[in-house]
Amino acid sequence: MSKAEEAKKLAGHAAVENHVRNNQVLGIGSGSTIVHAVQRIAERVKQENLNLVCVPTSFQARQLILQYGLTLSDLDRHPEIDLAIDGADEVDADLNLIKGGGGCLTQEKIVAGYASRFIVIADFRKDSKNLGDQWHKGIPIEVIPMAYVPVSRAVTQKFGGVVELRMAVNKAGPVVTDNGNFILDWKFDRVHKWSEVNTAIKMTPGVVDTGLFINMAERVYFGMQDGSVNMREKPFC
Amino acid sequence: MSKAEEAKKLAGHAAVENHVRNNQVLGIGSGSTIVHAVQRIAERVKQENLNLVCVPTSFQARQLILQYGLTLSDLDRHPEIDLAIDGADEVDADLNLIKGGGGCLTQEKIVAGYASRFIVIADFRKDSKNLGDQWHKGIPIEVIPMAYVPVSRAVTQKFGGVVELRMAVNKAGPVVTDNGNFILDWKFDRVHKWSEVNTAIKMTPGVVDTGLFINMAERVYFGMQDGSVNMREKPFC
Repeated sequence: MSKAEEAKKLAGHAAVENHVRNNQVLGIGSGSTIVHAVQRIAERVKQENLNLVCVPTSFQARQLILQYGLTLSDLDRHPEIDLAIDGADEVDADLNLIKGGGGCLTQEKIVAGYASRFIVIADFRKDSKNLGDQWHKGIPIEVIPMAYVPVSRAVTQKFGGVVELRMAVNKAGPVVTDNGNFILDWKFDRVHKWSEVNTAIKMTPGVVDTGLFINMAERVYFGMQDGSVNMREKPFC
Repeated sequence: MSKAEEAKKLAGHAAVENHVRNNQVLGIGSGSTIVHAVQRIAERVKQENLNLVCVPTSFQARQLILQYGLTLSDLDRHPEIDLAIDGADEVDADLNLIKGGGGCLTQEKIVAGYASRFIVIADFRKDSKNLGDQWHKGIPIEVIPMAYVPVSRAVTQKFGGVVELRMAVNKAGPVVTDNGNFILDWKFDRVHKWSEVNTAIKMTPGVVDTGLFINMAERVYFGMQDGSVNMREKPFC
């Protein structure tokens, strides 16, 4: 296992050890780091006979829940989530996140948004002072397909940088999200006031949601290269 | 023709006479009132040999554009619209609108949002001092289907009233929008600060857009029962 993969596992296990309790409704994130958390949740369910219900943030998360024999649910049946665990593409010093490298930002924000606690797991490469220090693929913006051109123009006119329509690899055309929308990747060229930028972009007609998660994460576990885990949390928690 | 239908025609014609000019990109709204505007646009195109391009806000608008032999375009080719004309379910004294009775609120907001001028046409029954005076079907909120339950709860917890999932008539299930989403109809129980409410609801995870059009309409033409047209415009225009 590579250093990064080891680090993901450390972070995932730390979050599960510290936060998963019996009788919780869990939000299950997407990406490569969450796999380790789900593995550990499944182990604990068997060892401790835990009664847990899992709400997925993506097709991948749903498959993981089923693969590991966990109880699958949804926000219709469980609109209040006790604990959401998810990865991130980048985390800044204030616990602002960029998410959505895997294109599931809207579902991830929904599940995190209705969770009492939102815990992030990541390897050391995702840890930044400022967003953009480590992650260079930009901030994803999910858009209604008919609006992708004017939204692109509006974002760059207002905030600079470059916007690219995310293209699919295995078909001739753009990535289509699980919600039937397109993704714009906004490569910003400077540090912004992210809360204001997030509100302005989300309020732009045609925008479904952004991959900026502001003031949502309560705590982040970073798996480190030396085998340790660094925890960072909101100062006011 | 009923008084209301006559009034819609008066409003539609007034808007087309006063605002449509040669070489414009037009946004074409949805609903029963817009039919009269499109008819008049088509007449003027023939009579005056106008060169116009039309961007639709719905399947219905697209069919109207084609039916009347107008030039169909989209926001990919024409991301800047000169003039959008659309109806409304209700208009208050400050030109705040409720739109989306026909379920096309998101596309209507996109087209209006990228238009230099947004002109509303309506009959006398849509004219209110406060939103809710005349229109009792509430404010539509387009939501990602997986989030309709927690969004409903969040809206009523924060702002009161009642939220209903809009059900389809000719199928067993909810209305699905042209964007593949659901519509919640929020029956509010008092007058709110609509700009703040609109921002708060749109920022709620799972919300695609709302049928509140705040500070967007520049001018409204109301067709009246006596055959006249009342015009109201933003005081600062």
